[in-house]
Amino acid sequence: MIIDCHGHYTTAPKALLAYRDAQIAGLKDPSWRPARAALAIGDDQIRASIEGAQLKLQRERGTDLTIFSPRAAGMGHHIGDATVSQYWSEICNDLIHRVCTLYPRNFVGVCQLPQSPGVDPRNCIPELERCVKELGFIGLNLNPDPSGGYWKEPPLTDRWWYPVYEKMVELDVPAMIHVSHSCNPAVHFTGAHYINGDTTAFMQLIAGDLFKDFPALKFIIPHGGGAAPYHWGRYRGLAQMLKKPLLGEHLLKNVYFDTCVYHQPGIDLLTKVVPADNILFASEMVGAVTGVDPETGFNYDDTKRYIEAAALSAADRTKIFEMNAFKVFPRLKAALDRR
Amino acid sequence: MIIDCHGHYTTAPKALLAYRDAQIAGLKDPSWRPARAALAIGDDQIRASIEGAQLKLQRERGTDLTIFSPRAAGMGHHIGDATVSQYWSEICNDLIHRVCTLYPRNFVGVCQLPQSPGVDPRNCIPELERCVKELGFIGLNLNPDPSGGYWKEPPLTDRWWYPVYEKMVELDVPAMIHVSHSCNPAVHFTGAHYINGDTTAFMQLIAGDLFKDFPALKFIIPHGGGAAPYHWGRYRGLAQMLKKPLLGEHLLKNVYFDTCVYHQPGIDLLTKVVPADNILFASEMVGAVTGVDPETGFNYDDTKRYIEAAALSAADRTKIFEMNAFKVFPRLKAALDRR
Repeated sequence: MIIDCHGHYTTAPKALLAYRDAQIAGLKDPSWRPARAALAIGDDQIRASIEGAQLKLQRERGTDLTIFSPRAAGMGHHIGDATVSQYWSEICNDLIHRVCTLYPRNFVGVCQLPQSPGVDPRNCIPELERCVKELGFIGLNLNPDPSGGYWKEPPLTDRWWYPVYEKMVELDVPAMIHVSHSCNPAVHFTGAHYINGDTTAFMQLIAGDLFKDFPALKFIIPHGGGAAPYHWGRYRGLAQMLKKPLLGEHLLKNVYFDTCVYHQPGIDLLTKVVPADNILFASEMVGAVTGVDPETGFNYDDTKRYIEAAALSAADRTKIFEMNAFKVFPRLKAALDRR
Repeated sequence: MIIDCHGHYTTAPKALLAYRDAQIAGLKDPSWRPARAALAIGDDQIRASIEGAQLKLQRERGTDLTIFSPRAAGMGHHIGDATVSQYWSEICNDLIHRVCTLYPRNFVGVCQLPQSPGVDPRNCIPELERCVKELGFIGLNLNPDPSGGYWKEPPLTDRWWYPVYEKMVELDVPAMIHVSHSCNPAVHFTGAHYINGDTTAFMQLIAGDLFKDFPALKFIIPHGGGAAPYHWGRYRGLAQMLKKPLLGEHLLKNVYFDTCVYHQPGIDLLTKVVPADNILFASEMVGAVTGVDPETGFNYDDTKRYIEAAALSAADRTKIFEMNAFKVFPRLKAALDRR
């Protein structure tokens, strides 16, 4: 079984974007109050949006299951206030649930949270509980920078975030640390903010001692860990200068990297530097980079090929493709058993 | 000859820091006006600060020449106003000049600029001219984020920066794109802001067409290019999605990466992915990561060892160690001839 731990619903029907556009347009009117969406999207529309995209690619590439969440750039936590974010998150998560219900063999849900800049993340707990307990989701995406490229929130190691972590441990769900769109004109979203978000989060974790307080907490750092594996020596050295334990002890019982690195040398580095126990297969499809690599003739984000070509033992490859996902997402097995 | 293109004067005498402390303390007093420093630092103090550090490491590691600039984190462009930045830059650059004068065989100067958040970078031109024409410097460090971790300046491809580029082309000097300290508590300076700065700048260059306007402009992106080489497939794919030429055509006639990557697998990736014509040897010593790697028994930042061990032809290794520096810093040869 090949489990892609990082897929987004980037192809959602236009009615979803129309609702969001209405939300954003409303922000300009001081008398406007956000309303919950009456989502008029039929199952056929959902099927059409998935069949020719994520499902087609699963079949073509030979992957089995995608751990599926709302479009990351679409989370837009910097837009509006916490209520706007709440209604938008509900509708996005509900739609993921419908995809997972229509295609229970192909998708398992992960939620976005109704984060809002400067708002106590406690506000996210009801939606997290709803998604896990009622919708059967197995994880969440946590945005370390709801300001959208200005980094105004405290580091992930700050007690500010602890209520979310307490709930995560209670529910036994991991978080992918994933920023959303950048509204900073200096910082391109998929080309800089995403990768910087990963790198920044990893360094926050090095500088803190979060997992002393939460030994059961699990984070996935996407996009191959940002810059971390390429600069592994730098990070080992910085941990040493900060008098932290070796990275294996300090972080690697709790932190995992996905394989959204879109060329063979990058995957070769990742699998050489990071233990196979800490790598989860992912492609981010349909995602940030959708073209065909002229050097290989295959899609950049067809990451399964790179893992297959990497110098890995069969056992390590199985960990990356399948076993680690069950370890990091403890609710995955029950979710699959239910289908 | 082995030329290290990225060294900072991180060991400057305490009198320099005392002047800076006085500057910063003065900012709190509304009646205070910044004063130029009367720098009471003797040659012996400079010698003492260099002999046991950069010079000792040059000798131990077998490198010949360091292209030397003020401490990057110390630039602190976010502190005070443009006048504060001006006086601080002058004193820092003067001190680099004194090091280069005392050790003409070992150091050649690169300047910091008196940048200040939101201030037209035209204000940097007199100091740049002074450093190149009067002090014999061969390059500059350009901070793409003088706000110190909040990214409030336009991208490097914006016309905002063009006056600096025009002067660079006229003087025939390259810029290392190097951020300074982060004053953002979410963003660690050497562990996140530096690397993110490199990645952000690289993506700004992909998204723009700067080198159409400035075909002779040259940039060095330090720290091995941030995350760029590790995510080379992502960047090739993003350039393609943005309808830009292949990276070789689009950027690699103008953009170079240094080798400040502190482990063998990282250097192996860099030298595999980026053409040897675009890589300049550097160690950033005495810099971000000062410890000994317990896995090798050598300093993390002893990057010469990694280049020597990388799968490179002798010709490519010579390019990286020496020849590319003469190409990217056209004033280097004359500077060496003068000594």
